[in-house]
Amino acid sequence: MTKGSTDLYLDDFVVGNVFGPTVGHTFTQTEIVRFALQFDPQPFHTDVQAAVLSPYKGLIASGFHTVSTCFRLFIQQGILTASSLGSPGIDDLHWLRPVRPGDTLRTVVEVLEVRPSRSRRDRGILRAAYSALNQDDDVVLSFVVNHLLARRPEAVASAEEPTA
Amino acid sequence: MTKGSTDLYLDDFVVGNVFGPTVGHTFTQTEIVRFALQFDPQPFHTDVQAAVLSPYKGLIASGFHTVSTCFRLFIQQGILTASSLGSPGIDDLHWLRPVRPGDTLRTVVEVLEVRPSRSRRDRGILRAAYSALNQDDDVVLSFVVNHLLARRPEAVASAEEPTA
Repeated sequence: MTKGSTDLYLDDFVVGNVFGPTVGHTFTQTEIVRFALQFDPQPFHTDVQAAVLSPYKGLIASGFHTVSTCFRLFIQQGILTASSLGSPGIDDLHWLRPVRPGDTLRTVVEVLEVRPSRSRRDRGILRAAYSALNQDDDVVLSFVVNHLLARRPEAVASAEEPTA
Repeated sequence: MTKGSTDLYLDDFVVGNVFGPTVGHTFTQTEIVRFALQFDPQPFHTDVQAAVLSPYKGLIASGFHTVSTCFRLFIQQGILTASSLGSPGIDDLHWLRPVRPGDTLRTVVEVLEVRPSRSRRDRGILRAAYSALNQDDDVVLSFVVNHLLARRPEAVASAEEPTA
């Protein structure tokens, strides 16, 4: 894999590091309905008429759409491309405010924890708190991703602690 | 909203109820790459050549793709259409096994908790554990959705407890 100068490995993160806000993404009615038809076909996501009568008083984006977009806004920067080994999961996903057609979201990521693996010295977990902000700087959703990341190859080669 | 005979409200759920397995959804290489380009552009989701060299030794679906599909397989049954008021969030999302082109997932949902609101007598939270099973009956992912559901209109009308 080609390594760029912006590649970050587990060892490069420090608790409290903040990335972003990223560039924005503006949600359109078309993409809200299209996503919902495929993944979350509830009337307040797919049917403008029904949505007006719902508690949201208008169409809102599926939470799966907003969380996936929030993740993409960070991951598309590519700084984890060289180190990412996937993820075991997500904690504490909160949908705090509706996202409507015309709303623009940006992502902020804060490092919560950097935990080298005790059994595999070449990798570890980065716990990262993702937040999506709208155009009014309201936090519309938040979640914590457990990223499985490779350690910096030099760090692994020079490590003196025994594997456990 | 038209109410069908299969509509379920908060009052209709009992802890331990299990729904499913649902019908299946088969993941194709085309849709895996298409979803990932839009929401999770990491090489093991978008690039067959890079994926072969990754720890997964081949293309795998984005976890946001699998979780959204798992949710859709349940929600498309429509039994929450009359009562669903959205969701405040998700807990404990675990991606347990990779999902590859050709894999078929089905969803099982178990009721964990039914909690009428103390402040709004017309609604409450249904905590539901979602699992996706593949064609070998392996659980590939699991998560808990906090569904905000309306109570059965008759139950609200006849309730005698004071609102708190």
